[in-house]
Amino acid sequence: MISKSLEFIIEKRLDGTLARSGLIITPHGSIKTPAFIVGGTKATVKTLNVEQVAQLGGQSVLANTYHLMLRPGVDTIALAGGIHKFMNWDRPIFTDSGGFQIFSLGMAYKKGIDVTSHSIKGDKDQAKNSSSQLVKVTDDGASFKSHLDGNSMFMNPEICMELQHKIGADIHMSFDELTSPLAGKEYIKKAMDRTHVWAERSLNRHRELNNDHVSKEEYLQSLYGIVQGAREEDLRRESAKFLGDRDFDGYGIGGVFEPEEIPETVRWVCETLPENKPRHLLGMGAQPADLFLGVQYGIDTFDCVAPTRQARNGALYTYDGRINIKNSKYQQDFSPIDSQCDCYTCKHYTRAYVNHLLRSDETLGLTLASIHNERFVVSTVDLIRESIENGNFFNYKKQFLERYYGVKGSEKFFEND
Amino acid sequence: MISKSLEFIIEKRLDGTLARSGLIITPHGSIKTPAFIVGGTKATVKTLNVEQVAQLGGQSVLANTYHLMLRPGVDTIALAGGIHKFMNWDRPIFTDSGGFQIFSLGMAYKKGIDVTSHSIKGDKDQAKNSSSQLVKVTDDGASFKSHLDGNSMFMNPEICMELQHKIGADIHMSFDELTSPLAGKEYIKKAMDRTHVWAERSLNRHRELNNDHVSKEEYLQSLYGIVQGAREEDLRRESAKFLGDRDFDGYGIGGVFEPEEIPETVRWVCETLPENKPRHLLGMGAQPADLFLGVQYGIDTFDCVAPTRQARNGALYTYDGRINIKNSKYQQDFSPIDSQCDCYTCKHYTRAYVNHLLRSDETLGLTLASIHNERFVVSTVDLIRESIENGNFFNYKKQFLERYYGVKGSEKFFEND
Repeated sequence: MISKSLEFIIEKRLDGTLARSGLIITPHGSIKTPAFIVGGTKATVKTLNVEQVAQLGGQSVLANTYHLMLRPGVDTIALAGGIHKFMNWDRPIFTDSGGFQIFSLGMAYKKGIDVTSHSIKGDKDQAKNSSSQLVKVTDDGASFKSHLDGNSMFMNPEICMELQHKIGADIHMSFDELTSPLAGKEYIKKAMDRTHVWAERSLNRHRELNNDHVSKEEYLQSLYGIVQGAREEDLRRESAKFLGDRDFDGYGIGGVFEPEEIPETVRWVCETLPENKPRHLLGMGAQPADLFLGVQYGIDTFDCVAPTRQARNGALYTYDGRINIKNSKYQQDFSPIDSQCDCYTCKHYTRAYVNHLLRSDETLGLTLASIHNERFVVSTVDLIRESIENGNFFNYKKQFLERYYGVKGSEKFFEND
Repeated sequence: MISKSLEFIIEKRLDGTLARSGLIITPHGSIKTPAFIVGGTKATVKTLNVEQVAQLGGQSVLANTYHLMLRPGVDTIALAGGIHKFMNWDRPIFTDSGGFQIFSLGMAYKKGIDVTSHSIKGDKDQAKNSSSQLVKVTDDGASFKSHLDGNSMFMNPEICMELQHKIGADIHMSFDELTSPLAGKEYIKKAMDRTHVWAERSLNRHRELNNDHVSKEEYLQSLYGIVQGAREEDLRRESAKFLGDRDFDGYGIGGVFEPEEIPETVRWVCETLPENKPRHLLGMGAQPADLFLGVQYGIDTFDCVAPTRQARNGALYTYDGRINIKNSKYQQDFSPIDSQCDCYTCKHYTRAYVNHLLRSDETLGLTLASIHNERFVVSTVDLIRESIENGNFFNYKKQFLERYYGVKGSEKFFEND
């Protein structure tokens, strides 16, 4: 049994930036940071088994409280001995609070948008207020309907903590209210204030539950506070200060959607947060620019389901930009997806074979594509870590992004370098 | 380069039966027989990668000429360097001639029946004549329409051999005409005679193509003749005699659909075929009884896509019979699918987890279920082999089938023991 829930060690800082490399130590092992956390929404990494996740360099996965609460139910996971045993993954696991899913349900539910994603594309009218017909938010918590069966449900900070403790991941997130990127400042402020009250309630309940673990000689869990405040500097700084003054084990940053926002939004937050706690950027990592800018402005870990979702649609990363592998021009292309990639797929299979499998609706195609995209993102962050350690970050960033986006397309990502 | 296309060594015979154990040696390695050949219809074993197929004991896979001809096209496979390289499987590969798919298309196309299966469930009127609106058969060959795009296509024995040689498997099948189990004897006889003519034409073209391989120092391929004749003893014996007199490398037996047919149909054929050639029972193996009776009456290899198809639907084998893992009673069942099973799934995962994954439409559920069912069948045949070698076959058969089907339900499978 580890008596400390989480330790964070900063190993190296990059002068003139907020970037650092380090180590997050959990009861299920360490994560070398910066790190990309693999999406494991429903207690499985879509189309992969745990050996494949480990083989592609995945250090940790992030599962989702909202989805697991609905199915299989947290009691089932608790009875299984916790999520690590349930899904056969003995390395660190994060759980998201479920807040994102609950508050985006109204927009996502009828539009076929994957509510596991962090990119909201509801229409403007609907998005102006974060609560929709399907979600009712009060100071106590949120009432919503299950997207599976329409059943009425309720979540508040205390319930959210209880759910996460039953799931039994290593790193939990406090319950927060998501605001749409289109919400007005007044509402953003109101939601942020509520998020702060909820953060304190989350922390209190979390401590009680951790005390129960101590008495049962179970491993301790840790809690990240979630910083909100949309694109408002004063609110972001206020939120980071408020939460930073409370003894969370780390911090999550929610409500960031585009890489262009990072040099401001993430910077405001990371300049304000205590330096000695890990910082997680929620739902970002679909684009390589997210990763480089995120680290540069102080992020230690990322999670994003877009790399594997795109893979399932045939959109695959290469160092020269993204390609659609289902395109007929790859039908007789017997080269790997990317000749510089070291993933299992690129070592053993051709573009022609992946094209064939995806066109034939064979799930092995989904698996091979997902392995490639996930390895691409994981290894990019691993190499960013290396570049911090050897002081080569800006060279690596420039070389990578210029090749990926083109010299012109990448210019905006170097504006403050 | 191996100058012989195929060698078959009989190692042990079981007194009073047609059963034997042996070894089929191909240019890509050996198959210990009796063996279950894993279904690899579209140059992939559905939901599994090749390492998983090898790990579950798969010695060889069977791909399908009809499907590969349509997509990705045999030229693509030839350009890839042959099917072994294309799909990254360096062990023996069989190809089915495609005849089954072509002749069952008419029945299967509009009914959503998987044409990779050998169980035809078309209505009786339509099934009385094997040729349907979508398939026109003449003495030369068969005209049919692609089920993918409706394009008109033509296949005859020569084309079939050319397609298979381009695919480049180790063991090919001659082009045959399938008759429905409901066809009248007159039509069955006519189709059988045509199948014999086609078998000779297949063999001639196959030899020419193998001569080309010799001149290019490529590995040789082998050809099985396909025995037809439905449930008519005289026709089955005539077909086995006719083909047995030709120098095929082995024989396939088509048109067997139920385990109850095996003690007659398979026996008639295997009593008549030359003893020193391997015998493959096409499309059978969905039920454990198929395997025990098949071996008992002279079969060396089986193939069947049903174990993995059933797995994808949640129907999983246990030694006490089949269960539907999606049933709610397994939601909190933390035991393995079968506690006696040695597969990857049973070693690492619970019924509750597989239930959760399949209910959540997660492809890992399909993979874990497929691994289990395929291992169940493969290991059952492997243990049948062992029971031949140590003379324990009848004990093993009785113990296995009585437990699986119940004492009463298994009686019919012991009638001639």
